[in-house]
Amino acid sequence: MKKKIDAFDYAREIVKALPKGVLLTTKAGGRVNTMTIGWGEIGVKWGKPIFIAFVRESRFTKGMLERNPEFTVNVPLGEVDRKILSFCGTKSGRDVDKIAACGLTLEEGEAVSVPGIRELPLTLECRVIYRQAQDPQAIPPEVISRFYPQNVDSTACGANRDFHTAFYGEIVGAYLAE
Amino acid sequence: MKKKIDAFDYAREIVKALPKGVLLTTKAGGRVNTMTIGWGEIGVKWGKPIFIAFVRESRFTKGMLERNPEFTVNVPLGEVDRKILSFCGTKSGRDVDKIAACGLTLEEGEAVSVPGIRELPLTLECRVIYRQAQDPQAIPPEVISRFYPQNVDSTACGANRDFHTAFYGEIVGAYLAE
Repeated sequence: MKKKIDAFDYAREIVKALPKGVLLTTKAGGRVNTMTIGWGEIGVKWGKPIFIAFVRESRFTKGMLERNPEFTVNVPLGEVDRKILSFCGTKSGRDVDKIAACGLTLEEGEAVSVPGIRELPLTLECRVIYRQAQDPQAIPPEVISRFYPQNVDSTACGANRDFHTAFYGEIVGAYLAE
Repeated sequence: MKKKIDAFDYAREIVKALPKGVLLTTKAGGRVNTMTIGWGEIGVKWGKPIFIAFVRESRFTKGMLERNPEFTVNVPLGEVDRKILSFCGTKSGRDVDKIAACGLTLEEGEAVSVPGIRELPLTLECRVIYRQAQDPQAIPPEVISRFYPQNVDSTACGANRDFHTAFYGEIVGAYLAE
């Protein structure tokens, strides 16, 4: 059962959940993967409702999004097993099927091919309409030291980069999985 | 009188106000300017609360932000005179003092040098920590036609560009002007 919602009605719940962790789910080649994210932005661009997800170059999710530029954002409402967020934030989809390992229940997508997750019921369905790698030269030095320590000597060359790409996902659907 | 708030508690009000228009206020060289915006994003990046404002190359506000990289976002709560949003969305600060022309009441900034506006009481105080010009090549053609028609033949050269720069403003304060 799904209840359609206006994503913006839940903007408070979404941004307040981010620092505690929400899931970003992708699907490509018959495979569903999810990862914990703590960063993201919700709002309007080009007259469209947009969720911006930030994904590092190295992530399995990055390749998934390149193959199928759709994602869902899965937000807990009330209690959620913190072990799920911890597991999905530290393991890679390259090594493990996180959906199976965590016993998550997929909810078939409505407006996108990517499913939601019943255990994190507030779902945004997003289609990527714009993407841009962030510019290492414009990131403040203290942010580089804190979040990209491995990149300090490699901002100018392509090697070993692990910066973020901003994926602008048009919110084409939103629902509560019940 | 100002009442401090948690910006995220008002995320719903902020994103729902955007399509109707909010103000983006800047201050540089002793001059305060404001412009109506309908686009923006609120959320988290690099562990910080961030409001992303999108400003076109041609805007007076762009130069203001280059001189003083701080801004406030001024959101109406309840009724606001639509003439203010219309005026501030069509006139340029190069030609007119919009604050005076609209009879707006400035509220001195708390955490930034840029004031709020009493008539649009929900105020985010932001300090720009990252900026990036959007990549014309990555914008979908239908978006180019609709929002950048003057740019259709000029995406490859620097001339006549009027694309947007994303200004990531760390939200360093938030209040209601009462």
